[in-house]
Amino acid sequence: PPTRLPNVGTTIFTVMSALAAEHGAVNLGQGFPDFDCDPRLIDAVSQSMREGLNQYPPMIGVPALRDGIAAKIAALYHHRYDAGSEITITAGATQAILTAVLAITGPGDEVIVLDPCYDSYVPNIELAGGVAVRVPLTEGSFRPDFAAIGAALTPRTRAIIVNTPHNPSGTVWHASDLQALAELLRPTEVVVIGDEVYEHMVYDGVAHASMATVPELAARSFVISSFGKTYHVTGWKVGYVAAPAPLMAEFRKVHQFNVFTVNTPMQHGLARHLADPAPYRELPAFYQHKRDLFRSGLGGTRFRLLPSEGSYFQCVDYSAISSLGETDFCRWLTAEIGVAAIPLSAFYGDGRDQGLVRFCYAKRDETLRSALDRLSTL
Amino acid sequence: PPTRLPNVGTTIFTVMSALAAEHGAVNLGQGFPDFDCDPRLIDAVSQSMREGLNQYPPMIGVPALRDGIAAKIAALYHHRYDAGSEITITAGATQAILTAVLAITGPGDEVIVLDPCYDSYVPNIELAGGVAVRVPLTEGSFRPDFAAIGAALTPRTRAIIVNTPHNPSGTVWHASDLQALAELLRPTEVVVIGDEVYEHMVYDGVAHASMATVPELAARSFVISSFGKTYHVTGWKVGYVAAPAPLMAEFRKVHQFNVFTVNTPMQHGLARHLADPAPYRELPAFYQHKRDLFRSGLGGTRFRLLPSEGSYFQCVDYSAISSLGETDFCRWLTAEIGVAAIPLSAFYGDGRDQGLVRFCYAKRDETLRSALDRLSTL
Ligand SMILES: CSCCC(=O)C(=O)O
Ligand SMILES: CSCCC(=O)C(=O)O
Repeated sequence: PPTRLPNVGTTIFTVMSALAAEHGAVNLGQGFPDFDCDPRLIDAVSQSMREGLNQYPPMIGVPALRDGIAAKIAALYHHRYDAGSEITITAGATQAILTAVLAITGPGDEVIVLDPCYDSYVPNIELAGGVAVRVPLTEGSFRPDFAAIGAALTPRTRAIIVNTPHNPSGTVWHASDLQALAELLRPTEVVVIGDEVYEHMVYDGVAHASMATVPELAARSFVISSFGKTYHVTGWKVGYVAAPAPLMAEFRKVHQFNVFTVNTPMQHGLARHLADPAPYRELPAFYQHKRDLFRSGLGGTRFRLLPSEGSYFQCVDYSAISSLGETDFCRWLTAEIGVAAIPLSAFYGDGRDQGLVRFCYAKRDETLRSALDRLSTL
Repeated sequence: PPTRLPNVGTTIFTVMSALAAEHGAVNLGQGFPDFDCDPRLIDAVSQSMREGLNQYPPMIGVPALRDGIAAKIAALYHHRYDAGSEITITAGATQAILTAVLAITGPGDEVIVLDPCYDSYVPNIELAGGVAVRVPLTEGSFRPDFAAIGAALTPRTRAIIVNTPHNPSGTVWHASDLQALAELLRPTEVVVIGDEVYEHMVYDGVAHASMATVPELAARSFVISSFGKTYHVTGWKVGYVAAPAPLMAEFRKVHQFNVFTVNTPMQHGLARHLADPAPYRELPAFYQHKRDLFRSGLGGTRFRLLPSEGSYFQCVDYSAISSLGETDFCRWLTAEIGVAAIPLSAFYGDGRDQGLVRFCYAKRDETLRSALDRLSTL
């Protein structure tokens, strides 16, 4: 049959999760928690279903949930979005990113991505008929290189996708990075697509640098997040996007003809839960503990640890342990040692092999300890 | 901001539902039931959440649900799909259609739609960079015109979207229509996108003519359906697509980078429910009763009734009642008579005005009676 994505296979997350299951390995590959959500959240969804909230919600999302998001963003990032015209509920963040890209990217338009990046971005741009321009993050430290980004801007540049906290590297943008981006984009009409799904997982007392915190950036940004990450329900597939009304109007034109709208009882359940700020305020400490547990456990091994300032990912350099390529090393680690990881090559345009893999530490402490037991021999 | 859909506004279903709410009108516009689903289905979803089924399911969907779909299709349409490589769960049928279109349509490729049609099809094709070729259904009777379809085929034709039972007209394809389509497409590689979301709503003892019933068509078709329609949960946004493995492989490449996957507990709940064929076997009688109630109630009015062989829609010609244009008539009917309907012009490429509107009869009998009371003066 005809194909639009000749170079795309099955996403690495699916491949590695299947391999982990096959070998009974501890799955630190695909990013999802192995613990459950707050039971009150489940009750709230069940209650919504029993109240008969099972038909189409408004296309843009349930009002109470949009109101809650606006209030949260105002409290944390001091930017006021209008819940009616500037916030839309999505079937997860991935759908939000594709929809934003489709809404503003036409044939031949360029969209900048920072390499390495999440594996959906480039196919998203290609599906829109656009051209993905990969600008490398700085070698070894995964920081934005504003000179390189500036050099990549052309009159055809429509958008740049920024992901902070960053998957896979765990680095975060700082306020100064946002300032540098704002200055760089000032003479342009480039739109920022901010993938901020790990917004509540920034550690060591650092505040998340949301695009919403800088008015000049907020005015040209889609700010995208995910309830799945924040509330430990990655399988519920509910996220959101906030953007100024004119951008949001374009987003909604596409959204209504993609998923039309998002699961009604889940939205109502999340709306009730979001009213309480405790869960997301407690999240940094919750995950920082897991990060520290995992890092200190790896301390006695020959893995070289990269920083993990945010997200729930820990990257390591295994070159003192093995000379296998990254994918082969991940297969070996899964099959022989019993711990699944993700090769960083999967996030690079050129699939480069640097001896780096990513572990996910969104796991029960006992799961992390069991993985560490297996890794401790290395 | 840049726009990809300059001619698109807010979908008519949203506009009319908002107007109905504003005027306290009986909403026979947007297609959704005003009654609830089987409480056992709600219990099954709640139970799945409590069992901890809240993280990412497999990208292609939960195995038990795919197995159930394969078994249902085998029982009803005598075609065997492989649940592993030929069935994928989607976030509703609309997402399935966009994803199928994106998967196989490139810049300049042509996709045939039969006019009038559901309002997402043409924007879907345009988002893929394709060209929508509108072939009219027969005037007045809304039947496929195979001579006209044949004349529209070109070497650039990638696909044809077929919707049966048909929204908005309520007509259905018959076995002979499938044969005619199969013959027409035999010399081509044109893919069929079968929007069959009303598959279990075909009346008067007629069997649904699924693309899956004709091996030659099944071999080139995406067959798409929706649990929301079948189980009275339009807000749950779970549907599916079945297609031969090579087509499905292309579909999944796009799907994984659109929504990635679909709500886990809803999938498990639906899987348990689908095992029982009673609900969908009883659906024709359930809705035929509502159709007959609504039609006989309109018998004493000056509305001229069109056939409603399937779907949950009843179209009427109101030209003996009013000389208003369709949209104005719908606004008047909503505001002054207290019953919302959808203008058929919303489904036409040229927005033509023929004095036709669509009512949805997926409503409690008392809702239908209350609407009929209001309409009986006309
Ligand atoms: C959508 S599956 C992958 C989950 C994830 O975000 C990751 O592992 O990077
Ligand atoms: C997706 S909202 C519209 C529901 C529907 O299919 C219709 O009313 O035609």
